[in-house]
Amino acid sequence: MNTPTPQKSLVSRHDPDALAEGVLAGNSAQLGRAITLIESNAKRDQEASRRLVAKLLPHSGKAIRVGITGVPGAGKSTFIEAFGMYLCKRGLKVAVLAIDPSSTISKGSIMGDKTRMEELSGQKNSFIRPSPSGGTLGGVARKSRETMIACEAAGYDFLLIETVGVGQSETTVRSMVDIFLLLLITGAGDDLQGIKRGIMELADLLIVTKDDGDNHQAALTHQQELKMVLHYLQSPTPGWKPQVLTCSAVEGTHIDSIEQTLESFRVGQIESGEWYQRRRRQSLQWVRSLVHESLLESFETHPDVAARLPIIEQKVSIDRMDPVSAAQQLLAAFSFPVEN
Amino acid sequence: MNTPTPQKSLVSRHDPDALAEGVLAGNSAQLGRAITLIESNAKRDQEASRRLVAKLLPHSGKAIRVGITGVPGAGKSTFIEAFGMYLCKRGLKVAVLAIDPSSTISKGSIMGDKTRMEELSGQKNSFIRPSPSGGTLGGVARKSRETMIACEAAGYDFLLIETVGVGQSETTVRSMVDIFLLLLITGAGDDLQGIKRGIMELADLLIVTKDDGDNHQAALTHQQELKMVLHYLQSPTPGWKPQVLTCSAVEGTHIDSIEQTLESFRVGQIESGEWYQRRRRQSLQWVRSLVHESLLESFETHPDVAARLPIIEQKVSIDRMDPVSAAQQLLAAFSFPVEN
Repeated sequence: MNTPTPQKSLVSRHDPDALAEGVLAGNSAQLGRAITLIESNAKRDQEASRRLVAKLLPHSGKAIRVGITGVPGAGKSTFIEAFGMYLCKRGLKVAVLAIDPSSTISKGSIMGDKTRMEELSGQKNSFIRPSPSGGTLGGVARKSRETMIACEAAGYDFLLIETVGVGQSETTVRSMVDIFLLLLITGAGDDLQGIKRGIMELADLLIVTKDDGDNHQAALTHQQELKMVLHYLQSPTPGWKPQVLTCSAVEGTHIDSIEQTLESFRVGQIESGEWYQRRRRQSLQWVRSLVHESLLESFETHPDVAARLPIIEQKVSIDRMDPVSAAQQLLAAFSFPVEN
Repeated sequence: MNTPTPQKSLVSRHDPDALAEGVLAGNSAQLGRAITLIESNAKRDQEASRRLVAKLLPHSGKAIRVGITGVPGAGKSTFIEAFGMYLCKRGLKVAVLAIDPSSTISKGSIMGDKTRMEELSGQKNSFIRPSPSGGTLGGVARKSRETMIACEAAGYDFLLIETVGVGQSETTVRSMVDIFLLLLITGAGDDLQGIKRGIMELADLLIVTKDDGDNHQAALTHQQELKMVLHYLQSPTPGWKPQVLTCSAVEGTHIDSIEQTLESFRVGQIESGEWYQRRRRQSLQWVRSLVHESLLESFETHPDVAARLPIIEQKVSIDRMDPVSAAQQLLAAFSFPVEN
């Protein structure tokens, strides 16, 4: 006979004040629950989630936020495991998050399988969280950003935000982090890159992985080539010239150089004031993109707009209506003042 | 004694049907007047402008639309003059337009001075138009896009859309053209590039200019380097691998190769169906960006939003308000349904 006490369990699950206390005390089980609340798609959880985030926000901001992406086969999880272990061994607290808007069903297709980072996930100073199931990139990103706030409030020093290369996800991750790493492999021939458009120019640090064994010379050659390529691209960060490093997660070599490079990035950026400038810009951009998303969603789901859109788009696509008139008709359907 | 007949002159200036007829007959004076109407910021001209564009639209689409940008000193106008002359001599009609959102005062700071393309502007088969004065990039782009429609309706075979490197203007031009050219110079040392972020990846064709005299060897070396760089970047056009050519506008060499490359681009893209697919996508994107701009403008100029924005942004920038709450408060000020 079950005698469930749903009322009580709901209350405790939803109590943002208690959760905030647990998170601030560094309790990782409470952090996990807080993130579950943040990730909840349920309407009834929204107010509690907002309250929780508001409580944690003033305690956030102390971590270094590292975005990590890579070409297929570059060994992102192997790298994150090796790098995370290196940090943990130095007494630092490391949270690993993922952004993967494609994983709506599996709730985290990347890293859902924690065995991918078995050693790291066993560390008491590590916290690994798969991608939230949120549908759209915007939804996933919003949750991830609030999860970052929670992890920072819980005292994590390093946030490693892994992204799979789905559409705009790298750009979104770039807008949430302090430094962005791109992992590449060496000697994979003509389509060695698999780098999506624009990704190279988001990166502050390029890392050629698998610099080990027979691969060593090829890795160095690749490093030189990449340096030349960077010469033609602009840095995503004022006052920082993107660098190319190599490492071996298997042999554990040069992991320390990567940490040192991150540290010199951080120090330089803090000294120049760019560190907080960027974060400030990112927060303001975040407000704007949330507003834009809401406005567009309201527009696109407006019944009169939704009814006319296919017909108008059809006319535009066969050059029977010009885009300006089309936009005006759609805005009129949305009961917006028609302007030129 | 003046006895002006403003009524009559206004009527004729505003008569979109007569203008459309003149444009369709290939009358370049009428084309000039039509563009003046399109570019007009006056409210009273909007209806006539819309009617004119609607009349011309079904007759547009036959030109090849070429976007051209370049690093400072790459000699954009010299190249356009040489390339335009080459086309004119082959009996083709060439229209040169510019997109320069910065030129609000001078009404076309680039090319306002037609002496920059003296020879080309003397050709009966050429039509040169400086950037419209429109303030925002969106405004300038809208007018330019409608000007392109007018030029096509007037029978021009080549539209050369020059852009100066102001902010997002290259991306905007890319969204209006079939093929995008990036002009570079050789041997300018460490900051030879001056290429803004992302521009390289918009280009279907890189052209190293000033491949003449003592510069020849350096131009070839540069060409090889750029080919390697392109190896790491993705093509902006499905089914097309970006190429690097060299040319000399002064010696007139390799201008023909450029025209041939454009032609092979066009033929390949038409055969694959991508040519019209892209144009269709561009038109639909155009509708969307016009709608977005209008929605955002209405939002940002809403008195309640405008009043609260600075305070809310201030709170966000010192981490005293989270971006989600900020967005919600702003949307509420705009009387939008508050959603999470």
